[in-house]
Amino acid sequence: MLSKNTVKFIKSLHQKKYRSESGRFFVEGEKSVLEVLQSDFLVDTLVTTESFEERHFGQLKSFGGQHITATQKQLEDLGQYQSNDAALAVVQMKPNLAFEPAGESLILALDDVRDPGNLGTIIRVADWYGIDKLVFSPQTAEFYNPKVIQSTMGSFTRVKFFYEDLEKVFAAWQLPVYGAFLDGENIHTLQGPAAGVLLMGNESKGISPALEQKVTQKVTIPGFGKAESLNVAIATAILCDNFNRLMRP
Amino acid sequence: MLSKNTVKFIKSLHQKKYRSESGRFFVEGEKSVLEVLQSDFLVDTLVTTESFEERHFGQLKSFGGQHITATQKQLEDLGQYQSNDAALAVVQMKPNLAFEPAGESLILALDDVRDPGNLGTIIRVADWYGIDKLVFSPQTAEFYNPKVIQSTMGSFTRVKFFYEDLEKVFAAWQLPVYGAFLDGENIHTLQGPAAGVLLMGNESKGISPALEQKVTQKVTIPGFGKAESLNVAIATAILCDNFNRLMRP
Repeated sequence: MLSKNTVKFIKSLHQKKYRSESGRFFVEGEKSVLEVLQSDFLVDTLVTTESFEERHFGQLKSFGGQHITATQKQLEDLGQYQSNDAALAVVQMKPNLAFEPAGESLILALDDVRDPGNLGTIIRVADWYGIDKLVFSPQTAEFYNPKVIQSTMGSFTRVKFFYEDLEKVFAAWQLPVYGAFLDGENIHTLQGPAAGVLLMGNESKGISPALEQKVTQKVTIPGFGKAESLNVAIATAILCDNFNRLMRP
Repeated sequence: MLSKNTVKFIKSLHQKKYRSESGRFFVEGEKSVLEVLQSDFLVDTLVTTESFEERHFGQLKSFGGQHITATQKQLEDLGQYQSNDAALAVVQMKPNLAFEPAGESLILALDDVRDPGNLGTIIRVADWYGIDKLVFSPQTAEFYNPKVIQSTMGSFTRVKFFYEDLEKVFAAWQLPVYGAFLDGENIHTLQGPAAGVLLMGNESKGISPALEQKVTQKVTIPGFGKAESLNVAIATAILCDNFNRLMRP
């Protein structure tokens, strides 16, 4: 049964402050909860409807944490989904380890991408292209924000991410840094294979002047209409697709 | 001065029912309002802050509709933006004309894309790539939804859109139809130049079986990770970028 304290605790995880204090975040919806159960994340508590339990009896048998059965209405009250007739999981955050590149073909770096939906979508794109190392500036949106988790559609379980001072790590790594600008080399005519770091900037300000100094190759997506720019998640996807071509010719 | 009736009318435009009844929608924020003023849309009413009026005195001189000065707080109360120290415009919808292809290199068609944010982002992508004819199935999100308008970042002023029975128009047009599927031809190895219709499907169901019959070439974005799919706006952008390569070699 869902106790008052559990309800209060899970609801507190909507706020960053309480996520940080407890080192926990929540994941909701059938697909994402199943994916987090199969991942290397540690799930403390699982709240599920009876119908979810019937559908996934096998996977639930081996779950060793706290397991609570609830109604759809209770689940919807706990989480942010308007409709959730499946499950919600309380999950332990991973420690923010230091990261040393080890021959990755492409690392994705984000300079202050602030919108949680954009960050989540970018993580899903990275997972699609097999890019599993992501480096974020400290002001980038919080990975464990429920809107980030939701937009990744389960991909948050398959990437490794690191919040770092990007100037420092770029200086230490000495890798080529491809930066997305509006006045760089046409990505369609760039010669490959290209490996290193792909750096994307903030939604309104782009890449900061300090980080621009570390960019070894500016790249641009050719456009032919009148839109001034592309959304950062869209631009990330198009650039990843082009790097994919260059790296797997 | 902002009358009670004007406030009530503008607030009613948050709902589709009242947008349809009045044939009006609203546009907010500095950039979008300036773009709609420069477009072929007809603006009935303009609500602006004094600072916006000072910044854009020249553009406002020629405006012949109703012009009301308001405070930032009043603007934020009228619209959906958390912060708006600029302007809001009440704009006339355009009639939904019939559309006959006339040598466009690429027409973008959407089969039941339901999320307003996705639709708006797709319109912005189309505008970036110079695709200005968009055909939507009747169940696609409403073009004039405030979230659609917001996500287009002004691009809604530069595209022509048509809500049509897609089966019927595809049969009538007899153009090649490229459909986005997970099991189509690799878009990286497709031979060009490719002209015709690019068809994107619903967020969860993809392209409907009936429309699949009209697809002459299934195309797929090659992925190398474990994500099952891409967001529809992301997939549209990647495909448009690839068609762009094929059509402007």
